[in-house]
Amino acid sequence: MGDEFSRIAKYFAPLAGEEGRGLIDDAAVLVPPPGRELVLTVDQMLEDVHFLPGDAPELIAQKLLRRNLSDLAAMGATALGYLLTTALTEGVTEDWLAGFTSGLEHDQKVFGIKLFGGDSSSSRGKISLSATLIGHVAPGAALSRNGANAGDEIWVTGTIGDAALGLQARFGKLQDPTGWLVARSMLPQPRMGLALAGIVSAAIDISDGLVQDLGHMCKGAGLGATLHAGRVPTSPQAAAFGPPALESRLTDGDDYELLLAVPPANRAALQAACGDLQITQIGIFEAGEGVRVLDDAGAVMKFERGGWQHF
Amino acid sequence: MGDEFSRIAKYFAPLAGEEGRGLIDDAAVLVPPPGRELVLTVDQMLEDVHFLPGDAPELIAQKLLRRNLSDLAAMGATALGYLLTTALTEGVTEDWLAGFTSGLEHDQKVFGIKLFGGDSSSSRGKISLSATLIGHVAPGAALSRNGANAGDEIWVTGTIGDAALGLQARFGKLQDPTGWLVARSMLPQPRMGLALAGIVSAAIDISDGLVQDLGHMCKGAGLGATLHAGRVPTSPQAAAFGPPALESRLTDGDDYELLLAVPPANRAALQAACGDLQITQIGIFEAGEGVRVLDDAGAVMKFERGGWQHF
Repeated sequence: MGDEFSRIAKYFAPLAGEEGRGLIDDAAVLVPPPGRELVLTVDQMLEDVHFLPGDAPELIAQKLLRRNLSDLAAMGATALGYLLTTALTEGVTEDWLAGFTSGLEHDQKVFGIKLFGGDSSSSRGKISLSATLIGHVAPGAALSRNGANAGDEIWVTGTIGDAALGLQARFGKLQDPTGWLVARSMLPQPRMGLALAGIVSAAIDISDGLVQDLGHMCKGAGLGATLHAGRVPTSPQAAAFGPPALESRLTDGDDYELLLAVPPANRAALQAACGDLQITQIGIFEAGEGVRVLDDAGAVMKFERGGWQHF
Repeated sequence: MGDEFSRIAKYFAPLAGEEGRGLIDDAAVLVPPPGRELVLTVDQMLEDVHFLPGDAPELIAQKLLRRNLSDLAAMGATALGYLLTTALTEGVTEDWLAGFTSGLEHDQKVFGIKLFGGDSSSSRGKISLSATLIGHVAPGAALSRNGANAGDEIWVTGTIGDAALGLQARFGKLQDPTGWLVARSMLPQPRMGLALAGIVSAAIDISDGLVQDLGHMCKGAGLGATLHAGRVPTSPQAAAFGPPALESRLTDGDDYELLLAVPPANRAALQAACGDLQITQIGIFEAGEGVRVLDDAGAVMKFERGGWQHF
């Protein structure tokens, strides 16, 4: 796949904004948008942890950006651009690299972002990738996962659990005739552009599983929460797998939907801010601690694991 | 080494500045310094590429920050803080992590920077680390590697070639009784805080080897350069290895000294800006292309390789 410098010139320099100075200099230079605060986040995609060797490189690139964009969405931020690290193994081909960069290029257009800079290295282990995303918000308007109040309703965007089923489909453990579940696993839809400041009291993106991420919001606010399992929105494709998939739907990660704490008085404003996007109320924050999941009969459900975490 | 969340809370949260929001939220929020441009860079440290499994974790952490700080120095930027990614293998111990974070803490104090955020993951391959450094410069004052003019003198800070010998010492291939060479290899001194804007016409930090990085400056400016090998500053510890080490001194990377293009009229200003720091004039930019290295007799020297690059 060529040497380091020709690889950068051929594949990455065409993706760079002017901040990246042609990817020639030691660093990028960014003029911050006047009167805005910057929002900074970084996430990795590691071979055999976050993606499989056979996954399409276009999708790996897109998921790398989208996982980070979802973090910006959870902060209420507008995305500007990103820095990229690649540590590639000797077996990586020109085709792989062309696919990877075409995925980046595609999503740069979709989300209006540019490549600012990065670092390209060889790996003696597996492929590792990271992206640092830079966005901005109005002063003081960044959302936090910590602001929920007792009595706030718990709302969630989109549908939950598709990605967990999609991962099983990628391993051949279940059938996904339409490809929808696999697409939800590899190509999440970060919920950018919702003007949620002043409407929600807290927000988080679901990356570790609904129950666990709701637990993070509870812990941050010093509260508990009740979640009604039957209200958790499910796509028709996921619903087809029936109740046995319920635990995985509630506790596996990678949905990249937003989980929101909303004062009941702001319900209409929330609907207006979300427009056509499906949003569903699934529970309530209350005094106490931890997440209580109730089934349709009102009984407390037990799960083997709370959610995803790295050792 | 505990689970992901307790690891973050125990080892990394204490390093976070207020921008990091306790490492609880999905992203960091930074109020940009008023009237300044931001400078952004990212570099990786990969096991068996940039460090060895037996290296002290304190030094790995410090080198990770210092390689990035050196990029900021080459842009003339002041450092603010950083985002960190860690992908750790199952064998990483609490001791390793305590050492690693104590190295970060030490250098945060030395260089006046704070942890803004990051991402912690498990690796199925080798350890991989990266840091995204954020700094700032006055508007338009960022240095570039591309601005050299014919007739500019080539100056270099510090001494060259210690790190290459230090790497050999780490492999047991040579003796380093004082530990100086190993220290130069693992603990570079980024040349922060030199007010070079308006004095130098171009700058780069030496990370790929003197000859190759000088070649980058030539290519960027559409010029050639003549380098006098005998003038390249050498530490007494490196000089003890004599001429056989010359090629490695000129072409191996990791010195993290600054290479500067300086109009002759600015020589006194350069000296004043650098204060007590050793700086040496080692050659000149001129019409043409590529780097010509002359020995003490004025004959052109040939090297087997130009410098370091990743496959």
